[in-house]
Amino acid sequence: LITVAVDCMGGDHGPHVTVPAALEFLARTGDVDVVLVGRREAIESELAARGKAAGKRLRVHHAAELVAMDEPPAQALRYKKDSSMRVAVNLVKSGEAHACVSAGNTGALMAISRFVLKTLDGIDRPAIATVLPNMKRTNTYVLDLGANVDCTAEHLLQFGIMGAMLVAAVEHKERPTVGLLNIGTEDIKGNEAVKQAAGLLRGSGLNFIGNVEGNDIYKGTVDVVVCDGFVGNVALKASEGVAAMLTTTMREEFSRNPLTKMAALIAMPVLRAFRDRLDHRRYNGASLLGLRGIVIKSHGSADAFAFSQALARAVDEVRNSVPQRIAERMALLQPQAALPPQPQSQVQ
Amino acid sequence: LITVAVDCMGGDHGPHVTVPAALEFLARTGDVDVVLVGRREAIESELAARGKAAGKRLRVHHAAELVAMDEPPAQALRYKKDSSMRVAVNLVKSGEAHACVSAGNTGALMAISRFVLKTLDGIDRPAIATVLPNMKRTNTYVLDLGANVDCTAEHLLQFGIMGAMLVAAVEHKERPTVGLLNIGTEDIKGNEAVKQAAGLLRGSGLNFIGNVEGNDIYKGTVDVVVCDGFVGNVALKASEGVAAMLTTTMREEFSRNPLTKMAALIAMPVLRAFRDRLDHRRYNGASLLGLRGIVIKSHGSADAFAFSQALARAVDEVRNSVPQRIAERMALLQPQAALPPQPQSQVQ
Repeated sequence: LITVAVDCMGGDHGPHVTVPAALEFLARTGDVDVVLVGRREAIESELAARGKAAGKRLRVHHAAELVAMDEPPAQALRYKKDSSMRVAVNLVKSGEAHACVSAGNTGALMAISRFVLKTLDGIDRPAIATVLPNMKRTNTYVLDLGANVDCTAEHLLQFGIMGAMLVAAVEHKERPTVGLLNIGTEDIKGNEAVKQAAGLLRGSGLNFIGNVEGNDIYKGTVDVVVCDGFVGNVALKASEGVAAMLTTTMREEFSRNPLTKMAALIAMPVLRAFRDRLDHRRYNGASLLGLRGIVIKSHGSADAFAFSQALARAVDEVRNSVPQRIAERMALLQPQAALPPQPQSQVQ
Repeated sequence: LITVAVDCMGGDHGPHVTVPAALEFLARTGDVDVVLVGRREAIESELAARGKAAGKRLRVHHAAELVAMDEPPAQALRYKKDSSMRVAVNLVKSGEAHACVSAGNTGALMAISRFVLKTLDGIDRPAIATVLPNMKRTNTYVLDLGANVDCTAEHLLQFGIMGAMLVAAVEHKERPTVGLLNIGTEDIKGNEAVKQAAGLLRGSGLNFIGNVEGNDIYKGTVDVVVCDGFVGNVALKASEGVAAMLTTTMREEFSRNPLTKMAALIAMPVLRAFRDRLDHRRYNGASLLGLRGIVIKSHGSADAFAFSQALARAVDEVRNSVPQRIAERMALLQPQAALPPQPQSQVQ
C-alpha cells in the first residue's frame, strides 16, 4: 500500500484543485492512500462541498502556514516550518508517506526537499526532470529544468545518470539512450562544461549517443536529454511560447468570419484529437531527482486532471523505486569518476 | 544604387535556389544590383535555364572554390581563399558590394566575415540576430543565436546595443525595448554573467526592461531579446522542433480517414492562412552584427522565396545604415562602460 502526501495549499488554485484531484485519483487507483496536508477547515470544506469526508484512505494532516508562490525560497525554508509544503515533505522523511506532490513555489519546494530529505551519495545537486512528447509518440525526459544554473561537467554527468535511471525505472527500458544538449552534433561544439561533460558521459557506462540539438527533444532522438538548468528552462519556456502562439493563431484564423467558423465546426473532431494528443496536462508532474525520497512538482496552474497526473507520476516512481535505482547506479560510478579516491568500505 | 553580393554556391541547394531567388528579387526591386559569386558555368547555366543572362544589374563574379556545409570554419578561412563565400565577403570589404548574403556554413561565414571585415570599435565578438514572429504580430529580434558560447556580461551588453540599433534602424523605432533572457523575472535569478549583464544593461541608456523568459520571445514582450549564443541556439531549435511536431501531428490527424480528409478540405483556406501568417520563410535572413559591413546568413535549406527574403533584409540594412548606427551607439557607450580609460581623441 502506497501513501502519497499532497501539499493542498500550493499552486494557483490551492484546495479547489488539489482536493478534487486527490478524490478523482483515489476513485481510479486501488492501492494508494492520500494524506491531504494544509489548513484543515479549507480542506474539509472542499471535501464537504463534494459530499465527501476524510476516512481511512484519505486523511487530513493540518498545517497552519502556506508558502506563497513568489516567496523567496530561503525565507520559506527558514520561517515556514508549519507550511503545507514543509509538512508534506516531512511526511516523506518520516516514512509516513512514500512520496509528496506540490504545485507550489518551485524554488521553495527544491530548497525544503533538499534540506529535509538530503541528496543521495555522490549527487551534488538535485535536478528537475520532466517528460515531453515527441514525434515518435514516445516520451523524452529532459533535465535539468531550472534547479541549477552554472553547472559543471560533473553535474551534467550526474543529471545523465539520474535521467537514465528514471527512464529505466518508469519506462522499463534497460539501456535508455542519453544525449547532451548542444548547439551542434560535432564534438568541438559547445561551451567548456558541455565539452567536458561529453567525455565524462562517454566514460560513464550509460548508453550515451553524443550531442543532440534543441529540435531533437521533439524528434525523440534520445530518451534522456541532459542540460544545464538555465538552458533547459529557457528551452522549455520557449517551447511553451511557440505552442501557445500556434494555438492562438489557429483559433484566431478559425474564428475570423462565419465561413471559417463553419470550417472550425466541421474540423472540430480533428482539432480535438490533435489537442488531446499533445495535451500538456497529460505531461504534468516534474520529478525532483537525486533526493532521498520522491518529490513531484506539479505546474502551478494545473487543473484537477493535470494535478491527478502528477499524483499518478508520484505513485509510478514509488512502485519503481526511482531513488533506489539512482543510488545503486551512483554507487557503481564512484570508483571511475574523477573524484578523490574513496576508502574501500564505501565502494561496495 | 545598392549592390548585393550573393554567395551562389552556399546552402543545401546552391545555384538552383540562389540564382532564381536573385532573379525574382531583381524583378521586384528597382534600385538594387546583384553580383552572383561562384562557379561561372554553374551560375550561367542556371540563368540560361531561365532564359536569362548576366547584364548591367546582374553581374557574375567567378570564384572557383566552395566551402562545404560541414567544413571546419578554421579550414575554410585558411585554405578557401577563392571560395564563393570568401569572395562575396571580399566584395563588401572592397566596397564593390554594400552587403553580402550566404546560405552556407554559418561558422565559416562568421569566421571569414570577422577576419575580412573586422569588428566595429568596442565590439569583442559579432553576434547572429534573427527575427521571430510573436502573438502581437510584431517582430521579436533575438541575439546571439550561436556565434558565441560562454559569453561575459560585457558581451551580453554589446549584444543588447547591437540588437537595439538594428531594431531602431530597420523598424524605425526610436527606443526599442530590450529584455535579458533569464529563467525568471526576478533580479536574483540566473547565472553570474546574466546577473552582471542586467546591471550593465540598466546603466547603458538603452530602454532595458529587465529579465524576460523563454515564452516572452513569442509573446512579444520586448523588441530585443538578449542571450548567450548557446542558450539562443537551443531556444531557437527547440522552438523549431515544437512547431514541426505540432504541424506534423495536425497533418496526421487530418489525414486519418475519409471524414477527417473532408474536414481538411473544408478547413484548407483557414489552415493556409494560418501557415502563411507564421511562415518561417518570411523570417529568413539572420544578421551578422558588429562587423564593419553587412553580412546576412540565410537558412541552409532556404527555397527561392526564403532566400529572396534574406536579400531583402540585406538591402534593408544597407538603406538604414545598420553598422553605422551600431558604431555611433558604441562610441557613446565607451566612457561609461567598465573598460580601461580611452584616450580623449577616441571619445568624440
